[in-house]
Amino acid sequence: MNLREYIREVQNFPKEGISYKDITPLLQDPKAMEFAVDLFIQKLDNQHIDVVVGIESRGFFFAALLAQKLNAGFVPVRKKGKLPAETLEENYDLEYGIDILEIHQDAISKGQNVLVHDDVLATGGTARAACNLVERLGGKVVQCNFLIELGFLNGRNKISGFPVESLIQY
Amino acid sequence: MNLREYIREVQNFPKEGISYKDITPLLQDPKAMEFAVDLFIQKLDNQHIDVVVGIESRGFFFAALLAQKLNAGFVPVRKKGKLPAETLEENYDLEYGIDILEIHQDAISKGQNVLVHDDVLATGGTARAACNLVERLGGKVVQCNFLIELGFLNGRNKISGFPVESLIQY
Repeated sequence: MNLREYIREVQNFPKEGISYKDITPLLQDPKAMEFAVDLFIQKLDNQHIDVVVGIESRGFFFAALLAQKLNAGFVPVRKKGKLPAETLEENYDLEYGIDILEIHQDAISKGQNVLVHDDVLATGGTARAACNLVERLGGKVVQCNFLIELGFLNGRNKISGFPVESLIQY
Repeated sequence: MNLREYIREVQNFPKEGISYKDITPLLQDPKAMEFAVDLFIQKLDNQHIDVVVGIESRGFFFAALLAQKLNAGFVPVRKKGKLPAETLEENYDLEYGIDILEIHQDAISKGQNVLVHDDVLATGGTARAACNLVERLGGKVVQCNFLIELGFLNGRNKISGFPVESLIQY
């Protein structure tokens, strides 16, 4: 199965000149979803995972599936103001300005093995912020994985301290 | 297993006087997640589902799991401006003003059986908007299910045309 065939490129979204990689055709196909989950699992190579962190909000789709498959907890990392209990926060750079990600302080315990997941690795800013949050709580980032990697944006450089896997590269 | 024990009540979030039902402790426990998914499946009573619609963004957690378990497609319904391709939109009322939900026009085909999922049934406004979108695309809403139902807000009245199930009631 070639997962790339399930990605739709939408031109000029969210703005002029961007070729947006739309994963919704993949989500609509349960066999493709299952195939992607199995590939993610293979790429973990039997490493033990206690917690899967999914980054808001498209990271939630596969993170919840991976957590169940790995018999691990699922932890959402969200934009500021969405998580109700005590949080840690990390800033990350946007093209103009900054944004803030949060994690619940009780989401991860010291020494836990953590898989960080998002749908797309672009510049790596959000992934880096998520990894920082995990480490500040004492977790170990075993791997960052992504459905899609936009290689031309060199996101791997920003998370160079962590093993990175992706299923589809552009 | 008593799922209610996995819900944390956070006082005065998102504002004074609200007792917010925080589902993150449940998400962190893979056995509780599995138990909840199995309960959802039971409540479908073997009805065939082609597509599971998850409502942004906490609806995504279980909707993706239910879709895989049912061998159904997963379709996200999102806030306006997030979906890249051609969409339909529905307004729904907030306490002050309105908000807009969107679905991709190619997300559902005529005659498909659809399960609509969100984490919490409150006033029913978002669920109603999601059901309207499904019907406008020719889908049949077989059931709306929710992890939590805030019974005192009478959300069922707003989606009275559809079968409703919930796992935890307040």
